[in-house]
Amino acid sequence: MMPERPLILVTNDDGITAPGIRTLIRLMNAIGEVVVVAPDSPQSGMGHAITVNTTLQVKKERVDDGPQLEYSTSGTPADCVKLAKHEILDRIPDLCVSGINHGSNSSINVIYSGTMSAAIEAGIEGIPAIGFSLCDYNWDADFEPVEEYVTSIVTQVLDKGLPKGVILNVNFPDMPDGQIRGLKICRQARANWVEEFDKRRNPQGKEYYWLTGKFVTEDDGSDSDEWALRNGYASVVPITFDLTAHEHIQELKSWGIHG
Amino acid sequence: MMPERPLILVTNDDGITAPGIRTLIRLMNAIGEVVVVAPDSPQSGMGHAITVNTTLQVKKERVDDGPQLEYSTSGTPADCVKLAKHEILDRIPDLCVSGINHGSNSSINVIYSGTMSAAIEAGIEGIPAIGFSLCDYNWDADFEPVEEYVTSIVTQVLDKGLPKGVILNVNFPDMPDGQIRGLKICRQARANWVEEFDKRRNPQGKEYYWLTGKFVTEDDGSDSDEWALRNGYASVVPITFDLTAHEHIQELKSWGIHG
Repeated sequence: MMPERPLILVTNDDGITAPGIRTLIRLMNAIGEVVVVAPDSPQSGMGHAITVNTTLQVKKERVDDGPQLEYSTSGTPADCVKLAKHEILDRIPDLCVSGINHGSNSSINVIYSGTMSAAIEAGIEGIPAIGFSLCDYNWDADFEPVEEYVTSIVTQVLDKGLPKGVILNVNFPDMPDGQIRGLKICRQARANWVEEFDKRRNPQGKEYYWLTGKFVTEDDGSDSDEWALRNGYASVVPITFDLTAHEHIQELKSWGIHG
Repeated sequence: MMPERPLILVTNDDGITAPGIRTLIRLMNAIGEVVVVAPDSPQSGMGHAITVNTTLQVKKERVDDGPQLEYSTSGTPADCVKLAKHEILDRIPDLCVSGINHGSNSSINVIYSGTMSAAIEAGIEGIPAIGFSLCDYNWDADFEPVEEYVTSIVTQVLDKGLPKGVILNVNFPDMPDGQIRGLKICRQARANWVEEFDKRRNPQGKEYYWLTGKFVTEDDGSDSDEWALRNGYASVVPITFDLTAHEHIQELKSWGIHG
């Protein structure tokens, strides 16, 4: 059962002023008591980085006129969740939502995603968590078409809970209002990035690189998140932080691998 | 079958001069042709971060008199593997080894680990990969007791290959030479860090935090990596980059979650 006024922690990886998180905060204000703890600058591609070699700063913020409490931090998305739980909040939140990310976190992107690392960190700490992403990398992306879906998914998760250790990775296709065909529960597609480093020279003649790349999937399974997104559905992938390839344990044992 | 002179990519997250990687390079020189591509400074806790918002530099290095080729980069461990595959090496390596990390990457530490993110990145790119860690955080840790195990595991993986999409996470207990009781194929233990932020004030009176914490496991299963390490065994966990919680897909479908 949904708590009367659930405490919702909101974070992201694009930074506290990104339009995606501002949309998410507005939607969450209609559902519960909202505390925002988000990076003070963009943290895309930060994966599950945490800050151990330098110090962390926390700053109270007031970005708009909403009822939410807001804090920016100098840390990564995972740091934000740790700081929220241990230093900022006085009780465990009922839910952590991360995003709405500007860009896809489907398939292998989940591994590199700061948005999802915040949600995974919350999951590790026992907080039900959802990461939301829109497959549009533009800063002025239109989040309107996904608003009702976000509200609906959050309401249902608050009502029903999530299995222990399960985090939801929700991606929305970039489609006009009213065109998304619905939700699909999916598995992570097998896909990867083929890197293309852009090699340049600085004004002093020294070489440097920009990381770019092409996304490649050969996974056409209709149960995958890539299939769902390409066919106009929002994808919902239940994910875990147990990386064990359980199905290969017996096989490795049978090798008789030894020291 | 092991290639005659396998090409072995060596990386880590403690930086190219760390004693752990110098040990690993020396051991790999006895097995194959070695190319080192490692961060130019420590990158602990970087998780699967990649560098998308700034540029990357690569520098040829000569750290010792060994036959290996060496490059340092300004990037993360995952960046190092991408740069190695796409810019530095002229063929796909037969194996990528990461480490030997100064400190544990067992149980939930795998999520935060730069050492393991390099190995996982190699796995994503189709390169058989192993991460090695010694449960001793000291810079002057004694790697001698684990040398024969590292050589043995690498030789066996080169000989037998690894299942597609499987990476090995190998952790060694901190024990004197000859005392390690053997290898155990394990699953990742359920454990987590309970953060304890150390709150301080800088000379100007401004508050800041250091992230510290206490490792907590309530998982006593004798099939877990924590059990193996606590009982004097090296742990070998086969891991995957498919984060899907497959066993929960049907359950979520049965909720009839909708937009």
